[in-house]
Amino acid sequence: MAKSSAPALSIPELIQKKRDGERLSTETIRTFVSGVVNGDMQDCQIGAMLMAIFQRGLDKTETVTLTDLMTQSGDVLSWPDEWRHLVVDKHSTGGVGDKISLPLVAALAACGLKVPMISGRGLGLTGGTLDKLESIPGYKVEQDKSDIIRMVTDIGCCIVGQTSRLVPADKKLYSIRDVTSTVDCIPLIGASIISKKAAESLSSLVLDVKFGRGALYKTPEGARELASELVSLGEGVGIRTTALLTCMDNVLGRTVGNALEVVESFDCLRGAGPSTLTELVTKLGGHLMVNAKQAANVEEGQKRIANSLENGEAMKKFAAMMKAQGVSPDTVAKLTKSHADTIAALPRAKFTRHLECMKPGYVTAIDAIVCADVSARLGAGRMKASDVVDPAVGLELYVDVGSSVKKGDRWMTIHYNNDPLSEDFVSRLQQALSVDAKEPKCTSLINCVITGKDVKQQNAV
Amino acid sequence: MAKSSAPALSIPELIQKKRDGERLSTETIRTFVSGVVNGDMQDCQIGAMLMAIFQRGLDKTETVTLTDLMTQSGDVLSWPDEWRHLVVDKHSTGGVGDKISLPLVAALAACGLKVPMISGRGLGLTGGTLDKLESIPGYKVEQDKSDIIRMVTDIGCCIVGQTSRLVPADKKLYSIRDVTSTVDCIPLIGASIISKKAAESLSSLVLDVKFGRGALYKTPEGARELASELVSLGEGVGIRTTALLTCMDNVLGRTVGNALEVVESFDCLRGAGPSTLTELVTKLGGHLMVNAKQAANVEEGQKRIANSLENGEAMKKFAAMMKAQGVSPDTVAKLTKSHADTIAALPRAKFTRHLECMKPGYVTAIDAIVCADVSARLGAGRMKASDVVDPAVGLELYVDVGSSVKKGDRWMTIHYNNDPLSEDFVSRLQQALSVDAKEPKCTSLINCVITGKDVKQQNAV
Repeated sequence: MAKSSAPALSIPELIQKKRDGERLSTETIRTFVSGVVNGDMQDCQIGAMLMAIFQRGLDKTETVTLTDLMTQSGDVLSWPDEWRHLVVDKHSTGGVGDKISLPLVAALAACGLKVPMISGRGLGLTGGTLDKLESIPGYKVEQDKSDIIRMVTDIGCCIVGQTSRLVPADKKLYSIRDVTSTVDCIPLIGASIISKKAAESLSSLVLDVKFGRGALYKTPEGARELASELVSLGEGVGIRTTALLTCMDNVLGRTVGNALEVVESFDCLRGAGPSTLTELVTKLGGHLMVNAKQAANVEEGQKRIANSLENGEAMKKFAAMMKAQGVSPDTVAKLTKSHADTIAALPRAKFTRHLECMKPGYVTAIDAIVCADVSARLGAGRMKASDVVDPAVGLELYVDVGSSVKKGDRWMTIHYNNDPLSEDFVSRLQQALSVDAKEPKCTSLINCVITGKDVKQQNAV
Repeated sequence: MAKSSAPALSIPELIQKKRDGERLSTETIRTFVSGVVNGDMQDCQIGAMLMAIFQRGLDKTETVTLTDLMTQSGDVLSWPDEWRHLVVDKHSTGGVGDKISLPLVAALAACGLKVPMISGRGLGLTGGTLDKLESIPGYKVEQDKSDIIRMVTDIGCCIVGQTSRLVPADKKLYSIRDVTSTVDCIPLIGASIISKKAAESLSSLVLDVKFGRGALYKTPEGARELASELVSLGEGVGIRTTALLTCMDNVLGRTVGNALEVVESFDCLRGAGPSTLTELVTKLGGHLMVNAKQAANVEEGQKRIANSLENGEAMKKFAAMMKAQGVSPDTVAKLTKSHADTIAALPRAKFTRHLECMKPGYVTAIDAIVCADVSARLGAGRMKASDVVDPAVGLELYVDVGSSVKKGDRWMTIHYNNDPLSEDFVSRLQQALSVDAKEPKCTSLINCVITGKDVKQQNAV
């Protein structure tokens, strides 16, 4: 990225360059990113530039440069040389009932890795890890750079929000992409995700790229394109990156909604989570263990992650993290005790309504998108960024895909606070459950794994 | 333009539609225009939408609809039925030394036409009619709707600025296009120009579309595309529209700069303007006379316009217009008296510098773009919209293309206020003059004429 000798372009000139499909030099991208951060670029200019990028694209080099410069637009964490190779993180493109981060972060720390997870809030149908954690009384997601470094050093993990000083270019760009129909653009998605991870100074990153009914990409093919771009970009900025393509047709695990998902996460931390959730937690963790050279292969890594859930070490890390992030020792003690104590320590909705199976057979689908939408409308999610989330409401399931059910079996409880419950919600949820006489074929949620090596081979072809 | 029965799109949805190259319905364009005017659409969203339009285009129907809805976004003038067919105007795409509007408006009024000219300010290398008029002490360009109607009714003409209530959608869109590199987009140029003319409720419009060194389009072919679009769009919103493609390689007339151009305009109003200026004034006017059915053919119309300049009737109209727009009777008397009195009544620069011909021969070019740039940098123009214009500075020429010159002949006087004068300006201006031993072929400035009929035939092919 040598400095160009040409004079810096004006902002209309840089927009014009991309408007006309030209490649942007490092200096031009620098003018763009600094203009976004320091206010030299007006909102209308940022909107126009994002649309020009949407239409004309960014090539690999431009995307890596944009990602680098976005990373450098704010604070970058730094770690002691002795364990820099142990710093890892996971990113998910967003699923329904996806509470993987909670048990995974603690399990990784229990296995000796360092996880400075900077996470986000939910928007639309996607839940947010921070919203889930905030249903724990006292949990403070706003932590500054020195707190993050202290927690990762002392405990091995934290889950915090993006501070105003971390990747400020992404904050501004994302808020504008969100309202200008320029979200769904792979180079911009990539730069947004990877710049935040690069600001954590990771050595390895695992990506959970979702496809299916409840995901942005309905087919593995669409998700594969994004996954390859993200892996390539992560490797481009020096992070060992692996992506798992995972199916998001059905709800992940058995809960949707903030406090309800925390309860399920504690079950997983007790080694008693639903098998789908535990499978993904251990697989994603296994890949990170290998990439951080703490396991010889994925199976070994996966086993160590599973052990940390079963032997209580992961729970200890989660407890320590909660205390460091403001939860009282008393609440931590209750939350970590038993399933019933966890429930008692968290907010609960005033009302519940139970749904029953209408016919006997096998569960073949639990439509993620319907569950996400109803849960969000009950108050568990946000329609717009300024909405306040209700921690207590959501959906609790008693079946998985493949479960055998009888007519009249309770399959779901709706937790809600606004009485009366909309009958439209009830009927939509009832239709979200598909039951068939034939037992569905049991398949792994994981469609395929994409590593840096795969992407390099692909690029070489 | 039937109402669509589909629910109105959200603003991100309407951006997405154009982003993906879809045709926008009338209702969608209505949401866009009203969003721009009432503030529902954020600046970043307007920037993104304009870039999407730049990239994906607007078809004929979309452009006519956008123009109509922009026109309706504010006040629309209305005229008595008896003389609605007489309401005409001229628009120029912007030239160097282009002071045509001043004599033309008065000459048209003298010939019985009605001219509610709403004009603009200069930006970049293009001078602005309002800036020229404001060099006349007391001339007020801000006039409200009732003033415009009164002046057009009583005198037959006015030249005023765009009020905040006239086509507010264009004001907002133009200010954003200006900084987002979305100016050079034919459907948006067309909608901007024609919406303002449609708000004047014209029956006929003549367009002076420039091509050449000193114009946006360097060749007649580029200008022809814009001219055809503008004629088609004007006709599409019910205005009889004719375009003249005119050459802007060289300075038009013999002055560049505000007060200097006013002096030349008064010369023209005395029937003593330079032949190029008078040719364009009478030709543009002649077409309007025909379209408003006040002349059987262009030659007859042209002759009547020329007569009004020679017999003082146009000067009387200009005098009445100045008085109605705030100029004192005393100043009007001086301005209309003689060439020397006109000069004395206007602001003058503190310093002058004379340039001489370096060799004998015939003038073959007086580079418009160099003259425009130096004049603007002397203070006659604006680099950005907030710059204040110096009315006195500019360039005065003593030669035209085709003039025979001797070595040492004075060919230009630079009028300036900031001493010392930059020697770079002097050398650039000196190089702007081309002199050759061979006499250049004398050609008309007018390349061709495009009428509504031509455009219809073209569309039919």
